[in-house]
Amino acid sequence: MCPSQEKKLKMPLGEEKNGACDRSIYVNNPHLESMTEDILYHFNLGTSTHDLPAMFGDVKFVCVGGSPWRMKSFTEYIAKELGLSEPNADYPNICAGTDRYAMYKVGPVLSVSHGMGIPSISIMLHELIKLLYHARCTDVTVVRIGTSGGIGLKPGTVVVTKQSVDSAFQPRLEQIILGKPVVRSTELDGELAEELLQCGKDLAEFETVIGNTMCTLDFYEGQARLDGAFCSYSEEDKQNYLAEAYAAGVRNIEMESSVFAAMCKLSNLRAAVVCVALLDRLKGDQLTSSHDVLNNYQQRPQVLVGHYIKKKLNASKKS
Amino acid sequence: MCPSQEKKLKMPLGEEKNGACDRSIYVNNPHLESMTEDILYHFNLGTSTHDLPAMFGDVKFVCVGGSPWRMKSFTEYIAKELGLSEPNADYPNICAGTDRYAMYKVGPVLSVSHGMGIPSISIMLHELIKLLYHARCTDVTVVRIGTSGGIGLKPGTVVVTKQSVDSAFQPRLEQIILGKPVVRSTELDGELAEELLQCGKDLAEFETVIGNTMCTLDFYEGQARLDGAFCSYSEEDKQNYLAEAYAAGVRNIEMESSVFAAMCKLSNLRAAVVCVALLDRLKGDQLTSSHDVLNNYQQRPQVLVGHYIKKKLNASKKS
Repeated sequence: MCPSQEKKLKMPLGEEKNGACDRSIYVNNPHLESMTEDILYHFNLGTSTHDLPAMFGDVKFVCVGGSPWRMKSFTEYIAKELGLSEPNADYPNICAGTDRYAMYKVGPVLSVSHGMGIPSISIMLHELIKLLYHARCTDVTVVRIGTSGGIGLKPGTVVVTKQSVDSAFQPRLEQIILGKPVVRSTELDGELAEELLQCGKDLAEFETVIGNTMCTLDFYEGQARLDGAFCSYSEEDKQNYLAEAYAAGVRNIEMESSVFAAMCKLSNLRAAVVCVALLDRLKGDQLTSSHDVLNNYQQRPQVLVGHYIKKKLNASKKS
Repeated sequence: MCPSQEKKLKMPLGEEKNGACDRSIYVNNPHLESMTEDILYHFNLGTSTHDLPAMFGDVKFVCVGGSPWRMKSFTEYIAKELGLSEPNADYPNICAGTDRYAMYKVGPVLSVSHGMGIPSISIMLHELIKLLYHARCTDVTVVRIGTSGGIGLKPGTVVVTKQSVDSAFQPRLEQIILGKPVVRSTELDGELAEELLQCGKDLAEFETVIGNTMCTLDFYEGQARLDGAFCSYSEEDKQNYLAEAYAAGVRNIEMESSVFAAMCKLSNLRAAVVCVALLDRLKGDQLTSSHDVLNNYQQRPQVLVGHYIKKKLNASKKS
């Protein structure tokens, strides 16, 4: 069944076939129709300067993460996993003309960095959704592969997000539009989350759990850390807040999942969030593990999502 | 007179002399006292791995901006302006071990990138404030040199911020701490803003104005743009909102000034925001100017702040 939207301002690109339709990408903006060109400024790409359908039309998976280095290393990793890597291959940054975001592509997999925090990922997603729309992509799955602080988890545990919740543990995102609050749902694709959890079990290389993810606007005071430049609360206040979060099903805390979930939902993109917990926040705030250990942890979401993509592509070859 | 704070949890470093005191940097966090080391994770620096007083003790000016490339080019520029550049000098990135932020230093001037949006700059500022505190810096001035969208301004105009206001045009920042809202003042240093405006007049190379700056959490819907992936309002709604903003004294819109102002105020840092308006939002939303033109515009805040730093350093040599 085609997804319906109450206020569908622009039709999706998918063609109806026997009452069903391809899973297409929506942009909900009637103004785009009247624009002669669309400049995706923060990607240094545009509809009149680049042939977006030729460059991106075959994209089926988009992986996003905060760090540009990590997104490049993911591209190298997935190329090998999919048998698409060539000796001495270098993957050029498609957004080389700007330092705002980095973007890499290998086969049907696009990898994009988004910086830190809701505003930074939100700019990237506006432009990514328009890019996929202009490129006439269909059936796209987007996964955020990130890092986070865990609650009551062994460091290195991978968390697949069930619901992205706010600081009051509600699955909602309040955005301000024309000075007024608008509340959006942060619901993610339940089936996709279960499939990713299963991938973690298949691999059996590290612990993978499913749980709620709290998304905050700040890393220090916003996450009850005691080691910021300012702190007006006690260790006990911190522990009480994290215990409340745990009781509400929160297993990790990061800074992008809510707007990621909300924007993917609005544009009909199948979406998931897979983050590794770098530490257990009940036991501390600072990242004291060695560089090598942290580096190993950061590769786990890549390995899990790499396994998922391989599985999906193999299944589609067979069918 | 020493600044007073109602809840002074930690004493400043400044020594009292004849009833006056050096302008010192506050951290308001009693927990820092009990930490044996402080890892500034997103800078890849720390108190037990780096001699922060030796590396940063002489810093008197910190310039921050979104783009790492721009902050490197500012360092090259200010080195020349201050006569501190050497032939073929390269300025190494002090945070080379991470891709979260970039940091450069020449003489008393530190230059740090902060990415896009309030959460991204907030992480950087927590660690910058602790860095300056650990390094025992005094009398530090911090200036954000950025880009913005103008309202009713000729593209290329430089705006010195009088007040940083929220989407309802109020000089306040609401932060969530332990799940509860805390409101902080976004007041900036009025005297410093006037001095910077005067520098623009001295230079007479481009238009410089003083005005309020609206700080938003989103670039597209949050700034009433019509060209995002989603837009549920009309051109008229947009124009009405921007007209309201203009009537409230807003002359430009960006995404970092409010938390920058709030955190600098809390830590007793003299702070200013100087942003160039890349376009007039009353006339459009997309950045259609050529790369060269935009590049020239982006250099203007650097030129203005470079002039200010030179003037201040010359004055302190004479006195």
